[in-house]
Amino acid sequence: MKKVVTFGEILLRLSTDRHLRFAQAESYKATYGGGEFNVAVSLVNYGMKAEFVTKVPNNELGSCAIHEMRKLDVDCQNVLRGGDRLGIYFLETGTSTRASNVIYDRANSSMSTLKKGEFDWKEILKDATWFHWSGITPALSQTAAEACFEAIKVAHELGLTISTDLNYRSKLWNYGKQPKDVMPEMLKYSNIILGDIDTANFMLGLDKVDPDYQQVATLPALYDQVFKLCPELKYMSTTLRYSVSASHQRIGGILYDGSQVYKAAVQEVTPVVDRVGSGDAFMGGLIYGLNEEPLDKQRALNFAVAACCLKHTIYGDYNLITKNEIEKLLDGDFTGKVSR
Amino acid sequence: MKKVVTFGEILLRLSTDRHLRFAQAESYKATYGGGEFNVAVSLVNYGMKAEFVTKVPNNELGSCAIHEMRKLDVDCQNVLRGGDRLGIYFLETGTSTRASNVIYDRANSSMSTLKKGEFDWKEILKDATWFHWSGITPALSQTAAEACFEAIKVAHELGLTISTDLNYRSKLWNYGKQPKDVMPEMLKYSNIILGDIDTANFMLGLDKVDPDYQQVATLPALYDQVFKLCPELKYMSTTLRYSVSASHQRIGGILYDGSQVYKAAVQEVTPVVDRVGSGDAFMGGLIYGLNEEPLDKQRALNFAVAACCLKHTIYGDYNLITKNEIEKLLDGDFTGKVSR
Amino acid sequence: MKKVVTFGEILLRLSTDRHLRFAQAESYKATYGGGEFNVAVSLVNYGMKAEFVTKVPNNELGSCAIHEMRKLDVDCQNVLRGGDRLGIYFLETGTSTRASNVIYDRANSSMSTLKKGEFDWKEILKDATWFHWSGITPALSQTAAEACFEAIKVAHELGLTISTDLNYRSKLWNYGKQPKDVMPEMLKYSNIILGDIDTANFMLGLDKVDPDYQQVATLPALYDQVFKLCPELKYMSTTLRYSVSASHQRIGGILYDGSQVYKAAVQEVTPVVDRVGSGDAFMGGLIYGLNEEPLDKQRALNFAVAACCLKHTIYGDYNLITKNEIEKLLDGDFTGKVSR
Amino acid sequence: MKKVVTFGEILLRLSTDRHLRFAQAESYKATYGGGEFNVAVSLVNYGMKAEFVTKVPNNELGSCAIHEMRKLDVDCQNVLRGGDRLGIYFLETGTSTRASNVIYDRANSSMSTLKKGEFDWKEILKDATWFHWSGITPALSQTAAEACFEAIKVAHELGLTISTDLNYRSKLWNYGKQPKDVMPEMLKYSNIILGDIDTANFMLGLDKVDPDYQQVATLPALYDQVFKLCPELKYMSTTLRYSVSASHQRIGGILYDGSQVYKAAVQEVTPVVDRVGSGDAFMGGLIYGLNEEPLDKQRALNFAVAACCLKHTIYGDYNLITKNEIEKLLDGDFTGKVSR
Amino acid sequence: MKKVVTFGEILLRLSTDRHLRFAQAESYKATYGGGEFNVAVSLVNYGMKAEFVTKVPNNELGSCAIHEMRKLDVDCQNVLRGGDRLGIYFLETGTSTRASNVIYDRANSSMSTLKKGEFDWKEILKDATWFHWSGITPALSQTAAEACFEAIKVAHELGLTISTDLNYRSKLWNYGKQPKDVMPEMLKYSNIILGDIDTANFMLGLDKVDPDYQQVATLPALYDQVFKLCPELKYMSTTLRYSVSASHQRIGGILYDGSQVYKAAVQEVTPVVDRVGSGDAFMGGLIYGLNEEPLDKQRALNFAVAACCLKHTIYGDYNLITKNEIEKLLDGDFTGKVSR
Amino acid sequence: MKKVVTFGEILLRLSTDRHLRFAQAESYKATYGGGEFNVAVSLVNYGMKAEFVTKVPNNELGSCAIHEMRKLDVDCQNVLRGGDRLGIYFLETGTSTRASNVIYDRANSSMSTLKKGEFDWKEILKDATWFHWSGITPALSQTAAEACFEAIKVAHELGLTISTDLNYRSKLWNYGKQPKDVMPEMLKYSNIILGDIDTANFMLGLDKVDPDYQQVATLPALYDQVFKLCPELKYMSTTLRYSVSASHQRIGGILYDGSQVYKAAVQEVTPVVDRVGSGDAFMGGLIYGLNEEPLDKQRALNFAVAACCLKHTIYGDYNLITKNEIEKLLDGDFTGKVSR
Repeated sequence: MKKVVTFGEILLRLSTDRHLRFAQAESYKATYGGGEFNVAVSLVNYGMKAEFVTKVPNNELGSCAIHEMRKLDVDCQNVLRGGDRLGIYFLETGTSTRASNVIYDRANSSMSTLKKGEFDWKEILKDATWFHWSGITPALSQTAAEACFEAIKVAHELGLTISTDLNYRSKLWNYGKQPKDVMPEMLKYSNIILGDIDTANFMLGLDKVDPDYQQVATLPALYDQVFKLCPELKYMSTTLRYSVSASHQRIGGILYDGSQVYKAAVQEVTPVVDRVGSGDAFMGGLIYGLNEEPLDKQRALNFAVAACCLKHTIYGDYNLITKNEIEKLLDGDFTGKVSR
Repeated sequence: MKKVVTFGEILLRLSTDRHLRFAQAESYKATYGGGEFNVAVSLVNYGMKAEFVTKVPNNELGSCAIHEMRKLDVDCQNVLRGGDRLGIYFLETGTSTRASNVIYDRANSSMSTLKKGEFDWKEILKDATWFHWSGITPALSQTAAEACFEAIKVAHELGLTISTDLNYRSKLWNYGKQPKDVMPEMLKYSNIILGDIDTANFMLGLDKVDPDYQQVATLPALYDQVFKLCPELKYMSTTLRYSVSASHQRIGGILYDGSQVYKAAVQEVTPVVDRVGSGDAFMGGLIYGLNEEPLDKQRALNFAVAACCLKHTIYGDYNLITKNEIEKLLDGDFTGKVSR
Repeated sequence: MKKVVTFGEILLRLSTDRHLRFAQAESYKATYGGGEFNVAVSLVNYGMKAEFVTKVPNNELGSCAIHEMRKLDVDCQNVLRGGDRLGIYFLETGTSTRASNVIYDRANSSMSTLKKGEFDWKEILKDATWFHWSGITPALSQTAAEACFEAIKVAHELGLTISTDLNYRSKLWNYGKQPKDVMPEMLKYSNIILGDIDTANFMLGLDKVDPDYQQVATLPALYDQVFKLCPELKYMSTTLRYSVSASHQRIGGILYDGSQVYKAAVQEVTPVVDRVGSGDAFMGGLIYGLNEEPLDKQRALNFAVAACCLKHTIYGDYNLITKNEIEKLLDGDFTGKVSR
Repeated sequence: MKKVVTFGEILLRLSTDRHLRFAQAESYKATYGGGEFNVAVSLVNYGMKAEFVTKVPNNELGSCAIHEMRKLDVDCQNVLRGGDRLGIYFLETGTSTRASNVIYDRANSSMSTLKKGEFDWKEILKDATWFHWSGITPALSQTAAEACFEAIKVAHELGLTISTDLNYRSKLWNYGKQPKDVMPEMLKYSNIILGDIDTANFMLGLDKVDPDYQQVATLPALYDQVFKLCPELKYMSTTLRYSVSASHQRIGGILYDGSQVYKAAVQEVTPVVDRVGSGDAFMGGLIYGLNEEPLDKQRALNFAVAACCLKHTIYGDYNLITKNEIEKLLDGDFTGKVSR
Repeated sequence: MKKVVTFGEILLRLSTDRHLRFAQAESYKATYGGGEFNVAVSLVNYGMKAEFVTKVPNNELGSCAIHEMRKLDVDCQNVLRGGDRLGIYFLETGTSTRASNVIYDRANSSMSTLKKGEFDWKEILKDATWFHWSGITPALSQTAAEACFEAIKVAHELGLTISTDLNYRSKLWNYGKQPKDVMPEMLKYSNIILGDIDTANFMLGLDKVDPDYQQVATLPALYDQVFKLCPELKYMSTTLRYSVSASHQRIGGILYDGSQVYKAAVQEVTPVVDRVGSGDAFMGGLIYGLNEEPLDKQRALNFAVAACCLKHTIYGDYNLITKNEIEKLLDGDFTGKVSR
Repeated sequence: MKKVVTFGEILLRLSTDRHLRFAQAESYKATYGGGEFNVAVSLVNYGMKAEFVTKVPNNELGSCAIHEMRKLDVDCQNVLRGGDRLGIYFLETGTSTRASNVIYDRANSSMSTLKKGEFDWKEILKDATWFHWSGITPALSQTAAEACFEAIKVAHELGLTISTDLNYRSKLWNYGKQPKDVMPEMLKYSNIILGDIDTANFMLGLDKVDPDYQQVATLPALYDQVFKLCPELKYMSTTLRYSVSASHQRIGGILYDGSQVYKAAVQEVTPVVDRVGSGDAFMGGLIYGLNEEPLDKQRALNFAVAACCLKHTIYGDYNLITKNEIEKLLDGDFTGKVSR
C-alpha cells in the first residue's frame, strides 16, 4: 500500500461550546488537530497508510496528542517527545453574520523549537511514496523552517511526490522573516501546490494578481507563472469558497495540471458545524484522488470538493468521513436520508 | 372519548450529542420511542385517549420505558413484562450533506420473541374504537408477525377501525420471510394505509410503479390497485418529502379516499432538529383528523402535514406538540414569534 | 465621557437547552437580563459609560444579578437591595416553524414592589447625560409606574436626553391600568421613542393605524401624530423585522427625525441563536450612534441594525459584540470568515 | 390494596451542580418534590397504592410536575390546575464542613392560594384507608391552613388513619399565625405524628423540653404530654440524626406506641449524596411498615430507618429505592457489593 | 520485550452519571472494557507489550472498541470483525449503603458466537511469552468455551506462561453447562490462578470450604488441593476485599507459590470512584510484578495490591495508572499531595 | 475602610471534570486564579476593600480574567494590558490514594515578562494600608522579581503593612536564580510571613531544620532565627496540614508573634472538593483577622484555619465563603445542617 508521510504541528484545540463567545465560556472542549495531521487522518479514513511526524512535549498533553494519532490509526512511531509545551489554539465558532475567532497560543511550542537534525528523515521516509508539508511549519520559527527544508530535500532525493498546502497565516511569521524570504526555495521541490494563485504569488514574491476563477480561460496564464518558478510542479489546485455567512458556504474547486483547468461544481453547505480543517479535507481528498488508479483528474477534484463539503458537518479539525460517504455525494445524493 | 390502541415495539434510543459521529461519542442521550408508540403519544397530546400495547423485559430498562409511557399519559395497563432485553437503536444525527445513521441492536428483544396468545386482545380492545399497527412488527420475527395478525383479527371482529403504517425497514425482515409473504393477508383488514404506492405495491407483491405525486390526475388509477387487494380500505395516504439536505426538508402530503385525491401545500422545514418519528407524527395527525367531527378530509390531511413539520423541530422520537400549536400553523402563522 | 443611566428590572432567565421543550428540560441554563440592562451592556461594549439602576432582593440570586452587572462593567453602585424575590422568566427557544415560548414568573419581584422615593434620583443622575427607560416598568405595578415617572421628571429637570423603548408586553399590565392610562403622561418627556407607530398610537390612546414601512413617503404623516402628543420628541425609530421562521429573520430599521425618514437595508439572519434582546441591541446601537460626533443619522441607524443582527447570534439576553465587529458589518463583510 | 392519600405542595427544585455555590451556578438541575409527595412516591415504590392531592398552575411547569407524578405512578387524578405559579426552591448542596443552603421562592404559589372547598374530599378519600399531611401546608397561608383542616376533618369522618409529619420550617409561617395558633386543633385528629418531642411541644404550645433520646426510660413521660393533647394519637416517631458533617450522617429512630419505646440501631451514612427528603423517606417507610401484616413495630421502625439511610444516596427529593433494597439492609448487608 | 496476549470479550459500558439510578438516567457515558482487555491496558501502562485478541462486530460500535485499544496502545492486529453485535453492560454506580447495579445485555455478542478455528493461534502467539484468559469466556457459550480451550492448548504447546482469573459471574453460564463441567480441563494448563480458594474449589468441583485468609498458617493445606488438580500451577493469588460500604473499601492480597504464603498489608480506599475492574488491575499488577527481574514475590504482590487500590480512583473499567504512581504508594506515600 | 493591595499573577485554570485523568479529558472547566488574587477575593468576601495588581494580555482571555476580578468586586483599576499570553495551568484533581496533578504552562506569560517601572506604585498604593505579595512572582523571571522588589520598597516607604506568603514552587525558579539569591533581600521588608520554618530557612539560605510543630515550646527558638534576618517581621504563621489522603485532610495552624506561639485546634476535612488555594484562604483569613479591632491573635488564627477548612469544599482557586459562614464554624457548628 502506498504510504504518505505528513509533517507539521499538532495543537490542542480548546473551543467554546457552540455559539458561545469567549466571554461566556465556562469550559472548553478539548480536541487535537493541525493542518498536516488532518490530512493524514483523511488518508487513513480513505484506506491509505499515513504517518504523521511531529514533536510534542513529554507531558500528559503530549501523550493525549499521541493517543489521538493512535486512535485514528495514523502511524506515530517517529513522533519525538521533548520541548516545553504543546501549542494551543482557542476557538470561538461563529454563526450567521458573526465570524469565528481564533486565539493562537502556540509560541515556544515543542514543534516551533524543533531543530534540523532531530529527525532521521532517510529512515522515516524509506517506505513512503509521498511527503506532505504546509506553509505553517516555516512560519513558526527559523529553526522550524530549516527543519522542514531538511525533510523536503530528503524526500526529493528519495523520489517521493511532494505536496504543499500554502496555508498562509498572517498571525504567524513573527520571527523576522516573510514568506517570500523562505518559501520560494522550498516550493521548488513541490509537485503539487494547494492554494490560490494570489497566495502563491505572494509567497513567491511575485506581483499581486486578482484571478477570476470563474473565467477558466484566463487561469492558465496566471498558473504558468507559478509553474515557472517551481520546476517540479505538476498540479496547482485551490478550493473555491463563497462565504454567504459563517453558517452558509458554497464550495467548489479548481485543478490545473499545467495544461488543462478542471473545475468542480459548486455545492451548498448549510448549516456549517465546523469549518476549521475543511481545506485540509480538500487536500486529503486530492492526494487520495491523485493516487487512485487509473488516474481521473476530474474525479480526483470532485472527490476533494465533496470531502471538503462533508468536513463542514464534522465537529473538530479533521474529517471523520468514509470513502463510501464521499462517493454517495459524488453520485449526487445530497439528501441526507436516514439509512435504516 | 374515543380510544385508540396502538401495538408495536418500544426501543431505547441512544443518540450522540448533536453533530457528533459515533466515533466521537463519549456519551449517549437516552430516550425511548417506536413508531406505534409515537402515534399514541401524538393522539394523547391532541386530547384523545390512547393505549400502547407491547412487551418489555422485567429489568430497569423495561421499567424506564414504562415510566415514559406513564409520563406521557399513554395508557400502559396491558404492557407485558418478560423476555430477555429491550431493543436498542443507536442514532447519529446528520446535518447538511451528511445523512443520519442508525445502528439497530434490536434482535432478540422481548417484543421480537412475543408469541401468539400472550395478550388477551378481546379484553384489551373491548373499549377501543381504533387499532393501529405498522409493518415493523411483522418484520421482527415469525412469532411477532403471528402475534400481530392475531390482534388484527380480533380488532376486525370487534369492529374497530384499523390503520396501518407500512414502515418498510430493509434492515429488518431477517427471519426468512419477505413482506409479500406476510403483509397481503394482514393488510386485508386495514381501513387506512399510510405509505407511498410504491411501498404498498412492493409489500403486496405487485409490480413496481413510479408514481408522480405531482400529477394528481394519474394517482387514482395507481391507488385503486391497492384498494382492490385490500377490501376494507377506505383511505390511503402518504407524506411527500423532498429532502434538500439532512437539515432542510420540504413536507407535503396526499390523502385518497377511493374517489378523490386531497393534497396539502408543501411546507419548508429548516433547520431540522430531529427527523426520526416525523412519519409517525403524520400518522398521529391523520388519525386525529379523521376522528374529528364533522369530518373534513382536507383539514385532516393539513393537520397531519403540519404535525409532521413541527415534529422536525422536536428532539426525540415522538411529537411533543399541542393541538393549538398545530392549529396556529394551519392558520398560516409560520413566523415563530415569541409569545410574551 | 458621556454617561447613560438605564432604569428597569433585571430577571433571572432560565432557559432549556437548545431545541428542548419545557416538558423535556432536565436542567435550565441560568443567565440574567432585562430590556434596560441589556441596553446598558451594549453601551459599555461600545466604549460608553453606563449605569443600571434597579432593585434586587437581598439573597444570593440578587447577588448573582449584581455579579453579572459588575462583570460586564455596568455601574451598579446605586442598585438597591430589598424586596422579596428576583423576577424569573422561563424560556424555551423555538426553531424552524416552532415559536419560542416564555413563562413569566415575575409577579411580586423586588422591582415590581418598588415605590416612589426609594432612589435619590438627583444624586444618581447628577453626572449623567442620558436617561433610558422602557414601557416594561410602568407595566409591572402601580407603584413601579410611579417610581418610574419620578425618575423621568428628575431626568428632565436635569436636562438629560430621555429615550424610551415602548416594549409592549401583553402578559404584563395586570394591575388594573392599561398603557393609555399611564404612558401618555410619561412619554411627554421622551426625546427618543423606539417602537412602531402602531404601538405608539396604542399606548397614547390614538386610533389603530396600519403603517406600511415600505412606503417611506407616507410615514411622516403617521409619525407626526405621535410627535404632536410628545412635545419633547426628536426621534422615532423602529426595527423592521420580517420573520421567515423562528430560525430565519430579516432585519431592517427606520429612523424619523421630525422631517426626514432614514431607512436601513434589510439583512438576512439565519440561523438565529437567540432572538431575545435583539430589540434592546437595536436601542443600544441607536443611543450609541446618536452620541457619535459628528452626528450621522443614517450611520447611527445602520449601526443599530447591524447590532440587532449580530445579537441574534449571541446566546443570552444582552449583546456581547464589540464596536469593531459591528463596523466590519457596516463595511459590508457578512461572510463570517475565520480570522487567523 | 390499601390506598394512601397524601396532600401538600409540590415544588420545582432548582439545584446547582454538586459542590457549586449559587455564585458559581451557570445552570440548575430541575427536579420536582415536596414532603407529602415524597411520601407518596416511597409508598408506590414499596408496592402500595398512593394518591397525591395538590394544586398546580395551568402552565408548562405545572404540567411538568404532573408528568413527574405520573412517571412515578403516583395517582394524580384529583390534582387541580389553577393559581398563578408553581412554588420554587433553589438548593445549594453542602459538603464536609459547609452546610447546604436553600432559597425559598414559593410565596403566592398555586398551593398557597388554595381555598377551602376547592377539593371534593368525600369523593377523593372514598377508597382510601390512610390520609397523610404535614406541617408545611398550614405554614403556607391562612387559606391553605383552612383547606388542610377541611381535608383532615373529612378523613377523620371517613375513618381513615391520619399521619402527620410536623415538618417545622421557620422560613415559612409568614402570614401572621404561629404553629401554636393553628396546629393544636389540627393535630387532634392525628393517629401518627412524626417529629421530635421538642417540635411537637413547640407546635402544641407546650413548654420547651430537652429530650435525651439516648435515655429511653425517660421518654414515655415526655411523649405522654403530647398524647394527652392529641386524643387520637397512637404513635409518635422521630428520626435520630447525628450530623458529623454535611457529608457524614448517623441515622437512627424512635417509635413510641403509648406504652413502649422502640429504638433502631444507628447507621453510618457517608458520603451523603442528597439529604433533602430523608425525613420523608423515613415517614414513607414507617407508613409502609405499620401497614404490614402481621404488625411488627420494631421491624416497621427499622424499615423506616433503612429507607432514610438509603435516601441519602439518591439525588433529588424522593426515595427511588425498592423494598428489596431496604430488606437487604435490614438483613445486615451494608457492603454495597456489585451484583453481577 | 516480553509480550503478553490476553483473550476475552470487550463490552460497551453505558453508565449513568455518578449517583444517578437507572430510573433517573437521561444519558449514559460510553466507555469500553472487559476483564482481559483491562489486564492488557495495565501491562502497557507499566511498560510491557500487550496484545488483546477478541471479536467485534463490523459496525461503528465495533470500530469504537478498536479505537479504544489503539488509543491505549494495546496491540489489536488480530482482532476479528464479524458477528452481530457488541456486548453491552449498563452500570449504575452505588455509593454509601447503596450497591452498584449491573444490567448485562451481552447475549448473542460477536464474542459469544465465536467458534473454534476462527483465530490462527500459532501465528498470534508466536512472539508472546505469556497468555492470559479468564473464566468469563467459557461462561459465554459452548462455542466460546471451545474457542478458549483451543487457545490455551496452543499457548501451552508453545511454552507460554498461562494465567487465569477465575472471574465467576453467576449471571452468565446460561448455556447449560456449569463451571465444574468445563473449567477443570482448562485450568490444568494454568500456571497462575487468580481467585479465592472457595471459587477455585467450586469451579473444580471440590467441596465448599470457608478459608480464613487471616490465618495464614491454615491456607497452604487448602491451596494444595487446587495445586493437586492443576499440575502446571505455580501460583495462586487473591485480592482480599473488606467492603465497609460501596464508598469505602479495604484492600489486601495473598500470594501462594506452592510453599509459602505472602500477604500484603491492607490499604484503605475511600471514597471509591469506580470499583469495576479493580480485580483486573490486581491481575495486571501481578503479571507485571512476576515478570520483574530479579523476582521478588512480596513486592510483586504489593504492586498488585497498590494497583488495585489506585484503580478504585479511576473512572472506567481499566487502570490509567503509571508504574511511578504505584511505586510512590509502595514507598508509603498515601497522602495525595499536589505536585507543583 | 482599610484597603489591601495584592500583587501577583492570575492564571487560566483548566481542570478536568472531577475524578477524570488528563488522558480521559474531553473538556476542561475554565476558571481563573492565582495565590495573591485568591487572597484579595477572600478579603472582599469578609467585607474589606481589596485591589489586585497584575498584567494580562490584550486578548479575550485577558479580558476574561478581568471579568472575574470585577465580578468578585476586586478592584482592578490598575491592571495592565500587554505581553503575549495569559499563563495557564492544567489541573487533574486526585482522590483517595491518587494525588492531584498540575501541568504548568505559564512560561512567557504577560506577568512573567513584566519589567520594573511598568506600574506607578506610589499612585497605586497611596490609599492602601496593606501590601501582599508571595514567593511566586520572584520565581517567574528576573524582571518579575525586580518588578516585585520595586513594589515592596514603595510599600515600605509609604508605611504599609507588608505580608508575604513564601509559596515555594519547585517547578518554577527556572531563570537561573534560586530563592536564597533573591528572597532574603525582599523578605527584609515583610511584617508577616506565611510559611513553615523549614521553607523560610531554605529561602533565607539558613540550614535545614526539622521543626516539630507539636512541640510548641521548641518553636520560638526556631522562629527567632527568621526574625533575626527579617528586621520588620512581627508575625510568622503556618498552616498545619496532615494529609490522610487526597480526599481527607486535617487542618490546623500556628501563629507566632515574636514572643508567644498560638495554636489552633486541628479540624477534619472530608471529603475534599478542591484543595488548591486553601493556603491562600488561610492567608486571607489571617490578614482579615489581624485587621480586626480589638486585635485577638488567637481568634485571628482560628479564623484563618476555619477559612482554610471551608475552602476545601469550594470548587476553584478562591474561597467563596462569607464571614458568617466562618463564624458559624468558629462557634463550633461543623454539622452542615440545611438552613430552611
